[in-house]
Amino acid sequence: MTTLTASKSAVQQGAFPNSTKKYFSGLIYPDIRVPFREVKLSYNEKDSNPATSLIYDTSGPYTDPDFVFDSAKGLPAIRQQWIENRGDSELYDGRITATEFVSRYLNTENKPKRIAKKPRRARSEQNVTQMHYARKGIITPEMEYIAIRENALQQAYKEQLAQKSAKEVTVLQEREARLKGNSFGAAIPDEITPEFVRQEVACGRAIIPANINHPESEPMIIGRNFLVKINANIGNSAVSSSIDDEIAKLVWAIRWGADNVMDLSTGKDIHLTREYILRNSPVPIGTVPIYQALEKVGGVAEDLTWEIFRDTLIEQAEQGVDYFTIHAGVLLRYVPLTINRVTGIVSRGGSIMAKWCLAHHKESFLYTHFREICDIMKTYDVSFSLGDGLRPGSTADANDAAQFAELETLGELTKIAWENDVQVMIEGPGHVPMHMIQENMTKQLECCDEAPFYTLGPLTTDIAPGYDHITSAIGAAMIGWYGTAMLCYVTPKEHLGLPDKDDVKAGVIAYKIAAHAADLAKGHPAARSRDDALSKARFEFRWHDQFNLSLDPDTAKEFHDETLPAESAKDAHFCSMCGPKFCSMNITQDLRTLANEATETSDLAKQSVST
Amino acid sequence: MTTLTASKSAVQQGAFPNSTKKYFSGLIYPDIRVPFREVKLSYNEKDSNPATSLIYDTSGPYTDPDFVFDSAKGLPAIRQQWIENRGDSELYDGRITATEFVSRYLNTENKPKRIAKKPRRARSEQNVTQMHYARKGIITPEMEYIAIRENALQQAYKEQLAQKSAKEVTVLQEREARLKGNSFGAAIPDEITPEFVRQEVACGRAIIPANINHPESEPMIIGRNFLVKINANIGNSAVSSSIDDEIAKLVWAIRWGADNVMDLSTGKDIHLTREYILRNSPVPIGTVPIYQALEKVGGVAEDLTWEIFRDTLIEQAEQGVDYFTIHAGVLLRYVPLTINRVTGIVSRGGSIMAKWCLAHHKESFLYTHFREICDIMKTYDVSFSLGDGLRPGSTADANDAAQFAELETLGELTKIAWENDVQVMIEGPGHVPMHMIQENMTKQLECCDEAPFYTLGPLTTDIAPGYDHITSAIGAAMIGWYGTAMLCYVTPKEHLGLPDKDDVKAGVIAYKIAAHAADLAKGHPAARSRDDALSKARFEFRWHDQFNLSLDPDTAKEFHDETLPAESAKDAHFCSMCGPKFCSMNITQDLRTLANEATETSDLAKQSVST
Repeated sequence: MTTLTASKSAVQQGAFPNSTKKYFSGLIYPDIRVPFREVKLSYNEKDSNPATSLIYDTSGPYTDPDFVFDSAKGLPAIRQQWIENRGDSELYDGRITATEFVSRYLNTENKPKRIAKKPRRARSEQNVTQMHYARKGIITPEMEYIAIRENALQQAYKEQLAQKSAKEVTVLQEREARLKGNSFGAAIPDEITPEFVRQEVACGRAIIPANINHPESEPMIIGRNFLVKINANIGNSAVSSSIDDEIAKLVWAIRWGADNVMDLSTGKDIHLTREYILRNSPVPIGTVPIYQALEKVGGVAEDLTWEIFRDTLIEQAEQGVDYFTIHAGVLLRYVPLTINRVTGIVSRGGSIMAKWCLAHHKESFLYTHFREICDIMKTYDVSFSLGDGLRPGSTADANDAAQFAELETLGELTKIAWENDVQVMIEGPGHVPMHMIQENMTKQLECCDEAPFYTLGPLTTDIAPGYDHITSAIGAAMIGWYGTAMLCYVTPKEHLGLPDKDDVKAGVIAYKIAAHAADLAKGHPAARSRDDALSKARFEFRWHDQFNLSLDPDTAKEFHDETLPAESAKDAHFCSMCGPKFCSMNITQDLRTLANEATETSDLAKQSVST
Repeated sequence: MTTLTASKSAVQQGAFPNSTKKYFSGLIYPDIRVPFREVKLSYNEKDSNPATSLIYDTSGPYTDPDFVFDSAKGLPAIRQQWIENRGDSELYDGRITATEFVSRYLNTENKPKRIAKKPRRARSEQNVTQMHYARKGIITPEMEYIAIRENALQQAYKEQLAQKSAKEVTVLQEREARLKGNSFGAAIPDEITPEFVRQEVACGRAIIPANINHPESEPMIIGRNFLVKINANIGNSAVSSSIDDEIAKLVWAIRWGADNVMDLSTGKDIHLTREYILRNSPVPIGTVPIYQALEKVGGVAEDLTWEIFRDTLIEQAEQGVDYFTIHAGVLLRYVPLTINRVTGIVSRGGSIMAKWCLAHHKESFLYTHFREICDIMKTYDVSFSLGDGLRPGSTADANDAAQFAELETLGELTKIAWENDVQVMIEGPGHVPMHMIQENMTKQLECCDEAPFYTLGPLTTDIAPGYDHITSAIGAAMIGWYGTAMLCYVTPKEHLGLPDKDDVKAGVIAYKIAAHAADLAKGHPAARSRDDALSKARFEFRWHDQFNLSLDPDTAKEFHDETLPAESAKDAHFCSMCGPKFCSMNITQDLRTLANEATETSDLAKQSVST
């Protein structure tokens, strides 16, 4: 196992430039504190009340200067009291704790020490899922938290509008009519209320991944009537990476905007790595439990059993994993459908289950024990991420019989989960040429009754290993527009190696772009306000504001400074691209003055005619 | 002016890994030599006739080991004889040569010396445009060259098909039916013949940028019934960069796949820089002549005159510029339409012309002298790239009245150019949210009678300076799919600074991805063969083949080697992502064997029943 240098795996903390952490509290639950990043703008900095811009904040306490990080201590358990107050769960002796695991299976040298808490589960006959509460008509603190989180930008936008003059409002109305989105049937309301969140969760159109054993998580929602979310995968393998590296990657991923993180570790420290990730993660954590189950049977797929898998699910649920990828749709009869593919089965979980099905010549225990899995899910509120084990691994295999057969089965399983009030999202491809992307979304909505779709890309061509964050950001933006609720990132290392921190950042930024482009195209009521604020800053040569409003202020500033490093250039009315004489924006400012004079003259002329 | 270090501005030569330069000759014109890159694959390397894959090659002689580079000597003039053979042009004393320019205006210290050739022009009453020949029914050597260039991949694909067994053909037919593209009215034939090229040029649906003073250029075509092309912008500014840097950037850009290059220099060495770029460029070169005209009047837009502009056009046409961006659609009455925009006018050329129009309160000389400009264009065969001076500079300004008013005027000007047999393409935006992209293409086809569209991105969001190669690759892929013939790249430095070599490469690769994704989605008959070859190599763990077939073999290999540097890992049936036990592709190979056995058993069972 490679151990990276301390500097490489250091956890990145600290606020963004000119930004402060701002917390909003609830009306129903006054003690909840919903975090945002507030960027101070310079354009009226001499005022006592400078203009600001609000940004959805996934970074957790790590960007709060008051927070003291200690990986062995973990984050504050902000949801602990909410969970306890519901009175439907209990502490118990879990089957294994991280420390026991370490002492039993591992060489403890160099492993950070940590005492695992007792796990919590639903009391007998209870169901602790957010869907269950929603269907009973209960608005949980998680739901109000999410309503504030999703609504604040819209609220801020409306407040800005209220301050405009009648003339400005007319201009804005023309603009809004022109830019009106096309949401393909999604219906994002002008105001996201706690009740709206409840309704969306109750009908299964959105999920709140929120294991009661992960009280450190800041509630978030995945559904096509909310902001499009992104997921970042981290995790070590048998070949590379350490626990510290994984924590550093987690914090790095959420700093740049990952809404969720999946720990795909397959190395031998799998349990302990996950424990550290969960205790230090303010975002929901997903896993693929079959990876660990396979470890337990020495890597021999045929030796997997329901008992070993069930035990693994409970072990991970007790740690606090918020969603499980489960490839229960890989049926025996679908396996031959992959024979003539260019790239066969490329999902790890899918290929493991296919091998098991063929070897035993029967349906997998994931499928035959699906109702028992639901029982586990509702005991901890783990959400299903129904895996697409037969997703295409090349554009040639897109939208084929195997892929869509599995999707139909995922639709059947969705209904069973919902009978149990268990939250579900559906995983989607993969590699799909542009013209075949929309069919994926349409079929998913049909087969799975609007359960949230969660896609990996898709990559729109296979010819660019080393750049698959780009080949896939194209597909991700499009499928996000069509209605996908969460986009699983792809890094430049896809198909080639494990992502390091630079790759994680490149993947996250590419996917923030895709998700935001999708929000704009859907016509999200407030998404455009950040674009407009940044474009206005650009046009007015407020360079620092342009950097600070961007997805990556550090890089924007660095690129600008490569040619014009002087601080004075930050106020310059030109940049290195055109130089002072040729700056179109500069010319346009002059021109606007000229034209305004002309318009006023012409307005006067009209007035004198009409009077 | 910054002079970069020699290593940074060195011209990159040499073949791609395991690749050789292969030349095809013509049937009509046996002496033409159309270059391709042929990649040798390893999967049957023990055969005397190893499998190969053919790649469209923009890199020019620089990847030919036999070529000796000397920037002062320039490239071989492959088109010289063809041009002379037509007998409709003559040499004359041009208005200025590079050396005269140097001695007259510049400090010649440190400037590489070069004697400019005499320029060539159409004889009196002659028209030397490819469109003119096409309309007269003449198939030029340029047209046959292009037919071979565009058809070879299709030919190779058909030859591969012919070698397949009946069973394999059935599988491929199912696949082709499933993957059938959607070309939005484009009609790429199964065979690109010289006659087809002629027809497309004759009707104006495609252009061949081919100034008779740029005989070094390897003919290429821009039209929506051909492969989607990309353009890379280079050029120094008053703030940065040297001539050597610009040549290095040119060679670097075409190495990675730029089909065309625009020289947007605005510095004082503008004439000499362009001379060196042209003499060393195997791809067509475009410029925006108004930049140099503005230099000549000391940067004061109002002082521009028709005479100065005309002189600049001729000066550049004599050097060999293949297409001119001319912002003749910026009309006086359109300027007030930009007043309420978030970012006004962001095209440099557009803002210069708008300022001129307002200052003089009349239509620009570009518009009023458009027919005289056509006379110049047809004297040298310079193509119009009708500039979108009023393109949106932010998503908020997309598809507004100003933008579409100008597009209608560009449509009128297209008709005038065509009356003169002058080739035309139309420039498009810019910044456009995804849901508003298709309208741009539809309106362009309508207004401009299918003249090729050439767009800058579009960027699908404004919030990611530093990553605008990605925000725009999304829009570029989509608009390419809808029918745009050439995509102008955007680099990571867009909005922030001038691109260096790394940025040029990042921009070119992002746009090769966009263009290729568009070809796949349009259903180009052969585009998918590279994806399939690469995916097959991936599935069969032929790592070197995977690298070598990719857009960037160097980066793919480097990323792989970061975790598994040993040469033995290049044959390993796993990678660092999953490690040996979890490799889905490896499992699938086992599984395929299992399943094939099962199928054969079942086939046998069926046979015994039917007989």
